[in-house]
Amino acid sequence: MNKYIAGLNLPHDLKTMEYDELEVLTYEIRDFLIEKVSKTGGHLSSNLGAVELSIALHRIFDAPEDKIIWDVGHQTYVHKILTGRAEKFDSLRQLGGMSGFPKNAESPYDIFDTGHSSSSISLALGMAAARDLSGDDYNVISVIGDGAMTGGLAFEALNNVGNLDSKLIVVLNDNGMSISHNTGGFPKYLGKLRASRKYISMKESVKKSVSKVPVIGKGVIAGIHHAKDTIKYAVIDGVIFEELGFKYFGPIDGHNIKEMCETMELAKESNDPVFIHVITKKGKGYTKAEEKPNIFHGIGPFDMESGKPIKNSDKPSYSGIFARKLTDLASKDSRIVAVSAAMMEGTGLDSFHDTFPGRAFDVGIAEGHAVTFAAGLAKAGLKPFVAIYSTFMQRAYDQIIEDVCLQNLPVVLCIDRAGIVGADGETHHGIFDLSYLKHMPNMVIMAPKDGSELELMMEFASSYDGPCAIRYPRGTALQSKKKRNIILGKAERLKEGKNVEIWALGSMVEKALEASEILKENGIIAGVVNASFVCPIDKDMLLESSGKVSLIVTVEDNVIPGGMGEEINNILINTGVKVVNIGWPDKFIEHGTCEELYIKYKMDSSSIAERIKREFEG
Amino acid sequence: MNKYIAGLNLPHDLKTMEYDELEVLTYEIRDFLIEKVSKTGGHLSSNLGAVELSIALHRIFDAPEDKIIWDVGHQTYVHKILTGRAEKFDSLRQLGGMSGFPKNAESPYDIFDTGHSSSSISLALGMAAARDLSGDDYNVISVIGDGAMTGGLAFEALNNVGNLDSKLIVVLNDNGMSISHNTGGFPKYLGKLRASRKYISMKESVKKSVSKVPVIGKGVIAGIHHAKDTIKYAVIDGVIFEELGFKYFGPIDGHNIKEMCETMELAKESNDPVFIHVITKKGKGYTKAEEKPNIFHGIGPFDMESGKPIKNSDKPSYSGIFARKLTDLASKDSRIVAVSAAMMEGTGLDSFHDTFPGRAFDVGIAEGHAVTFAAGLAKAGLKPFVAIYSTFMQRAYDQIIEDVCLQNLPVVLCIDRAGIVGADGETHHGIFDLSYLKHMPNMVIMAPKDGSELELMMEFASSYDGPCAIRYPRGTALQSKKKRNIILGKAERLKEGKNVEIWALGSMVEKALEASEILKENGIIAGVVNASFVCPIDKDMLLESSGKVSLIVTVEDNVIPGGMGEEINNILINTGVKVVNIGWPDKFIEHGTCEELYIKYKMDSSSIAERIKREFEG
Repeated sequence: MNKYIAGLNLPHDLKTMEYDELEVLTYEIRDFLIEKVSKTGGHLSSNLGAVELSIALHRIFDAPEDKIIWDVGHQTYVHKILTGRAEKFDSLRQLGGMSGFPKNAESPYDIFDTGHSSSSISLALGMAAARDLSGDDYNVISVIGDGAMTGGLAFEALNNVGNLDSKLIVVLNDNGMSISHNTGGFPKYLGKLRASRKYISMKESVKKSVSKVPVIGKGVIAGIHHAKDTIKYAVIDGVIFEELGFKYFGPIDGHNIKEMCETMELAKESNDPVFIHVITKKGKGYTKAEEKPNIFHGIGPFDMESGKPIKNSDKPSYSGIFARKLTDLASKDSRIVAVSAAMMEGTGLDSFHDTFPGRAFDVGIAEGHAVTFAAGLAKAGLKPFVAIYSTFMQRAYDQIIEDVCLQNLPVVLCIDRAGIVGADGETHHGIFDLSYLKHMPNMVIMAPKDGSELELMMEFASSYDGPCAIRYPRGTALQSKKKRNIILGKAERLKEGKNVEIWALGSMVEKALEASEILKENGIIAGVVNASFVCPIDKDMLLESSGKVSLIVTVEDNVIPGGMGEEINNILINTGVKVVNIGWPDKFIEHGTCEELYIKYKMDSSSIAERIKREFEG
Repeated sequence: MNKYIAGLNLPHDLKTMEYDELEVLTYEIRDFLIEKVSKTGGHLSSNLGAVELSIALHRIFDAPEDKIIWDVGHQTYVHKILTGRAEKFDSLRQLGGMSGFPKNAESPYDIFDTGHSSSSISLALGMAAARDLSGDDYNVISVIGDGAMTGGLAFEALNNVGNLDSKLIVVLNDNGMSISHNTGGFPKYLGKLRASRKYISMKESVKKSVSKVPVIGKGVIAGIHHAKDTIKYAVIDGVIFEELGFKYFGPIDGHNIKEMCETMELAKESNDPVFIHVITKKGKGYTKAEEKPNIFHGIGPFDMESGKPIKNSDKPSYSGIFARKLTDLASKDSRIVAVSAAMMEGTGLDSFHDTFPGRAFDVGIAEGHAVTFAAGLAKAGLKPFVAIYSTFMQRAYDQIIEDVCLQNLPVVLCIDRAGIVGADGETHHGIFDLSYLKHMPNMVIMAPKDGSELELMMEFASSYDGPCAIRYPRGTALQSKKKRNIILGKAERLKEGKNVEIWALGSMVEKALEASEILKENGIIAGVVNASFVCPIDKDMLLESSGKVSLIVTVEDNVIPGGMGEEINNILINTGVKVVNIGWPDKFIEHGTCEELYIKYKMDSSSIAERIKREFEG
């Protein structure tokens, strides 16, 4: 461990260190981050950009009494270092190890377990209102990125700030990108602020104003108010925030600790809601990450020198297959367009965009709008494929049901990262999508067993005239040679069973096949059905299954409540066949590798076989 | 029918009528609306406010080729009159009759079946983008109220407008209220625009500019552009919209048809996104409604002279009991606070607010923020009760799971209008809440059989230290004398069964009891269990039931997929007992009275008894 990080009593010592000592600390932290993340993988770019900001926050505010609420939370590595967790970085994002996101159970400095964007201002405003009602006087600070600001929830909160008389501080960490780049009128507005000449004059103005304030404390409020007013009128560009009821301070240099500390002191002494606009550089201090901040946004282990990933699978990923197939379909059908919510690279749509720039829409972090916008596209005759991760698609629940299903429009929901995703943990696993879609009228739900079936399902979807969803997992995809017709509501029997039939969905089909091999060695002949469709489920084949075996086992990469198993139970309940449902339990699943989690929760092929064997032993 | 409405070929004739003829038409329409709605009930205030606006839209634009998309849609009565549906008003909101909301199946002039707020800009932008890709050239117009503008989805769309190069027109129908009054920084900003002196000068400016334009048509685009610029710089107050990429026109007088038509002509000729800010008065032209627009927002049949409701039940409503009990609990527990999303009156919280103004938070139409804000309140030690209608609570799906359930915070979701609601139809029935909550880890779900149990459940919730939801229906509540302890996950057996046990939830308990009486006459002894809890369901009592009868029937006011019945199936699947699930089918349920709908879908007590009898005949 380096000198400062190891030798300091953090965050306490930050308050008394000289600025040049803090500067040295920033170098140590960056080296530490690059080294650690190169081994474990994780979110790098945004943390490199937030080094000075995290230091300034912990220098000026007294956490955990003061509540620092990090939006999304993948940018909290520095905060974790500064709150006594540096030595845990070797276990970052590993099963049983430190989370890559804030976790209240991990540290009292982590107020909320975040992971989805745009919530921090609402959370902060709630705490601020409660503080005022309870007569307490701590500070509440929301730290939000410019990407998260395009989410409607952030706007709902900004709007409500103007309604309450509560003091809170919103720190906009503006690096001009979400994961890749931001889109929309609001980011353009922020860009204008950044580019504004006011930026420079503001910096001068803060310096001059602050120099008038002899000591920071209650006694100098009048002086600070004067300083604040000077700042305010120097930066009238922040008019949107001012109109919404904030005092706008900024933009300020997010890599200048002194400037940030001085501004935060002013904010702390203000009795009004304050909006501090901080400009940072994503990937700051590591050339590879500065050049390709999106690549280093979330990355696996990499070589520090070259910046290259240490292992790169040569198997195609589901996202890659999806994007290639969509490009292929779009070349034959001009109605096909693609919609993404700030995940062009993650979903593979960047390559679609390269081929069809005018037919790819990235709406920013705004999943609700992505879906409703797609409903508009479909109404006007196009065929939108909306690619969003499973865990984020749930942010469009109301829009899917009202704007797509009720209108019965041919929108294709391409639900990437369905099932568990591994190291990102609780907030990122996609294990609820079947449950939140299954009860929506008119919705067809499919899940491919491999990459080839994904392509077939996309073909089916491109000609299906109604709402449908295709869920597929993170990672690499198997390919199968055997092609088949996808027919609405028809399952595929892969193996005939004598004693038991396993109805498996999506990526679990492979595990079911493996389990069936294990069972064979134990004298149990297990059939395997690839369900393909959850809605409508293949009732005929199910009843056929139930007529010839004594046990049906359902296996899905979704929580059991509301999932495929329940759909099957509904059909089999009065048939007399025994049914066992295997899926994720009714709880939040922690981080770890997917394989570790499958084993821990007894969803790997051996455990599935074991579970089935037990039924025949009992 | 009055002279104009009956004698005109609408909307076509609107294009050639003189302004003074249109003025007469506005009087006729208002008389017509007041008379019709006084008989059928419906949304009155917002329609009275939108008379001139609807006329202007249909005069200037060529619907249905031009797409007029109405946000929420309860303000479309005038639009319906103007598009040939005046004679259907006697059947308004009645089973098989005309919907109170836009319905594409009813008329090609109704583009989307709306009902939930804040979606129209996203829908319009989608259609505009598709139009441009397809090389078409129709106009797309979103008509949105100021209340709906506080919903995050509207902001996500506004932001995305700045990203696309598509022309669309957003008409803000600003009456300064949503259902009652608006709250927040953004409405305050609109208020400033309204109050601005620019309003007057703008009106003059439009008149002068437009007078320069000899004939409206392609030939005068240059002239119009000049006029537009004049307007733009006269109203620099619209800076938020300008910064987001719109040309802002307004504010203009929404009861001056000529002024609106002239502005809309300018908007039509513009190639940029245009934002027209129209000021209207809710309830305009009917003194009773102008004075109490919230009462006449949605109203049952009333006396035109006095404005009084024709029948007013003297039984207490669930909302009334909820509000009184919450006030009572709050007087003993200072941690208790209430949160509403623009539904203070509807949920009964206006009376709570009267007693505890500082402890009632109305966040505006922003359900996601309401829930996340409540999570912040709870984290800081308070006990928030969040009262939102079932159909709107689904807009906070992501926030409930991420910000409440994952944090395991004691937020009480008070889900009003659960089950079918009657005349508002598809978009307003609350028949999905069990399905979208049941799979959320840590969530406790209750439903009271009557008003007394609602109070008991609220007591339970006030001391329960985790997320919980209480769902209760629209309308009046029975009371029961027998008090009992609410114990987590414990059901209440109301009647012992010999042949069958009916597991009923909430308002269906009464119907189950009635069905059991009918069955008794047929020699079938049906037990009745009030489930009380859906999560956790009373597994012990269920297994006890299944051990003594041959048939278990589940009855719930929710769709069957994902509901209580499925939870029960999961437990009973391997017991051998026969199970029948009764609930709403997997489709959208139309409007009609609740009783009519129960009968149509065989969920009334006679149908339930009939269904059970059949099982014993077979």
